[in-house]
Amino acid sequence: MSSIPAAVPAPPSGDEPRRGRPGYDQRQVLDIAVAAFIEHGYDATSMGVLAARLGLSKSAIYHHFPSKGDLLRLALDEALTALEGVLTAPEALQGRAADRLAFVLRGAVIVLVNNISYVTLLLRVHGNTDVERDALARRRAFDRSVTALVVEARDEGSVRSDIDPRIVTRLLFGMINSLVEWYRPGGPENTEKLADDILAVALDGLRTPTADRAG
Amino acid sequence: MSSIPAAVPAPPSGDEPRRGRPGYDQRQVLDIAVAAFIEHGYDATSMGVLAARLGLSKSAIYHHFPSKGDLLRLALDEALTALEGVLTAPEALQGRAADRLAFVLRGAVIVLVNNISYVTLLLRVHGNTDVERDALARRRAFDRSVTALVVEARDEGSVRSDIDPRIVTRLLFGMINSLVEWYRPGGPENTEKLADDILAVALDGLRTPTADRAG
Repeated sequence: MSSIPAAVPAPPSGDEPRRGRPGYDQRQVLDIAVAAFIEHGYDATSMGVLAARLGLSKSAIYHHFPSKGDLLRLALDEALTALEGVLTAPEALQGRAADRLAFVLRGAVIVLVNNISYVTLLLRVHGNTDVERDALARRRAFDRSVTALVVEARDEGSVRSDIDPRIVTRLLFGMINSLVEWYRPGGPENTEKLADDILAVALDGLRTPTADRAG
Repeated sequence: MSSIPAAVPAPPSGDEPRRGRPGYDQRQVLDIAVAAFIEHGYDATSMGVLAARLGLSKSAIYHHFPSKGDLLRLALDEALTALEGVLTAPEALQGRAADRLAFVLRGAVIVLVNNISYVTLLLRVHGNTDVERDALARRRAFDRSVTALVVEARDEGSVRSDIDPRIVTRLLFGMINSLVEWYRPGGPENTEKLADDILAVALDGLRTPTADRAG
């Protein structure tokens, strides 16, 4: 989300021309707010700064988002709802635990890539406000569900039992969430190949099956 | 950071009441500065804030650290020198590439755990100043060395060849660097066991060797 010119009228999205000031729909305002939060930090981004970026008056923003916290809440909800959707898809609920775990990891990679700025914001939340604490609680619940899947996969014998399942979840999401640091949309890495690579390392490791495992 | 002259008289050890100004050596000042940078952000931490945290006058800090950038430079150098030291240890230079790679990954975990606040600061650097850009250049050089090891290990046949070695390095350090988010010194996870766990996932994966790999 690097190249959003500040205060340039947004193109009327599709159909109708909008009245008066540059027109944005709620999602566009949110996109621009999220980019500003990531670039400058949430605390350092005032509604005035956002208004300037959008070329709107502060009152025009307040009309749709009564506070900066509302923007944050909606943005975090966007990321969390997408992640939670992976856990409730049929493929996450039926079948062998190992396959469900693989589905959830792949789904998390795809959600992250498709919502990279929203997930970046989510990963930077540290619980300074009620909105942030609610988001952290939902993240923890997501992690617990993944850990429960790891436990199931271990109990069915398909995942190694010598690592604490909570550590497993943290390492897996360490790998997945690192994408926000280095993945650039439109880069050479295709999302599906990236998900394949992450699953390959997570499930089968780097070492070739024929290599000496004593090292 | 070896043998740095004390800025002011060293604090009385134990619980004797202190007289006059508190005394710190350079490392202690750096530790407190790094903690403040992490808590409030580097930009938001003024020398005045640091002086207040230390109970020193600003001039007492400036006497040893002419600018805030000097504190940042020393802190980042601390983390980078420790990481670079792993690459130049004999075990990183001799033997099979797969074993050298395993040694470097384990060493990086140990450096991270033993210098967690310094590495946390390093990982948050985004290149806004010359000091930060120099640190990023050293981080990239470190990553390139690890990638070169991955390539060697692939060429000797001990590491899978179906993933771009640069992606491999990013995923490995995604997993390792995530420790700064969740590892707490003194917690239940022992450093060696943590390093074992990370190497186990990275090299052999989560899946049990007997499990069906078709999933």
